[in-house]
Amino acid sequence: MKLYGAPMPAPNPRRVRMFLVEKGIDLAETRVDMMKREHKSAEFRTKNSLGQIPTLELDDGETISETVAICRYFEEIQPEPSLFGRTAVEKARVDMWVRRIEFVLMTPVGNYWRHFHPRTAALLTQYKDFGESNVETYANAQKWLDRELADRPFIAGDAYSMADICAQSTADFATWIGLPIDLERTNLVAWHERVSARPSAAA
Amino acid sequence: MKLYGAPMPAPNPRRVRMFLVEKGIDLAETRVDMMKREHKSAEFRTKNSLGQIPTLELDDGETISETVAICRYFEEIQPEPSLFGRTAVEKARVDMWVRRIEFVLMTPVGNYWRHFHPRTAALLTQYKDFGESNVETYANAQKWLDRELADRPFIAGDAYSMADICAQSTADFATWIGLPIDLERTNLVAWHERVSARPSAAA
Repeated sequence: MKLYGAPMPAPNPRRVRMFLVEKGIDLAETRVDMMKREHKSAEFRTKNSLGQIPTLELDDGETISETVAICRYFEEIQPEPSLFGRTAVEKARVDMWVRRIEFVLMTPVGNYWRHFHPRTAALLTQYKDFGESNVETYANAQKWLDRELADRPFIAGDAYSMADICAQSTADFATWIGLPIDLERTNLVAWHERVSARPSAAA
Repeated sequence: MKLYGAPMPAPNPRRVRMFLVEKGIDLAETRVDMMKREHKSAEFRTKNSLGQIPTLELDDGETISETVAICRYFEEIQPEPSLFGRTAVEKARVDMWVRRIEFVLMTPVGNYWRHFHPRTAALLTQYKDFGESNVETYANAQKWLDRELADRPFIAGDAYSMADICAQSTADFATWIGLPIDLERTNLVAWHERVSARPSAAA
């Protein structure tokens, strides 16, 4: 088994590394040089036709991409500690929160990075007005998540889960590109301190 | 159990209805009047703080939102016929394809609808240049998916899965808003005919 990834600040490979730390699975990451655009090479596209990392190569050569799908594979082969839930309703609840975090919290951060940040301007056509509008969208997402966190320690409930990994990596990447957590969102700030104290935060 | 949804052309409630037909689960949809903005009412927001449908209300009052999470719940309580895969690698593969369809195929269609289509212009601030750019993004997504479908009948492999439901509802919604499947993408066209012949297509 081979895991293709890249170091910080790339948020998606980090999500897999954090997941592996939480699971106690020891699997070294094979680094892909994103500055050299290795992930977009013809060779790498035989592993992932979209030229994206992370990508997991299984021993029979099949490759799995998409961060959450890779983590789900590890959850299936090593169920404990559970990070996607155990019962039908727990699994649905965690999946709901993973998706809400990706669509509501991660999407505006990604759009801002893709369409406004100077680092991506040289690589891609940007729609800057749209890109900048995501600052407000992300601020509203934080307000919503802050209200949600008023009555529980973790995103999907009493237990730490994949949804926390997704939200934490998003918040940390957002900070790195100039969109720190709003300090008025005290529940969100407290949650971030809570998850940042875990060993997986260093991944 | 109560499933809140809305009729065509809303693509997300339709995905759940298609899934239920494929599973042979008989559950009537409780219709939410989107034209009257009922899904954004204070009452409905007690069920889904984002004011979105579909939303599934369980018998104990807990609510699950996000289309794929709702379908995953039904998969867990009634595993056959499997639409999310049975083994670890099958589950990862289907999840990968569900996510690829959502991020690569559905996102440009959603962006075009949200930022360019006249029907949403009255409700929301649009960034029309960005919105229009998604026509090309969606065209490229179809090229990519057409290549992927060269060697297999369904999106995630030999078996019909949740990924097909996601792609089919996306393609049909795209057609409805003026972005039909490019007829030069013959594998994609053949796949669409294949899935459209299933009873679930009428859902």
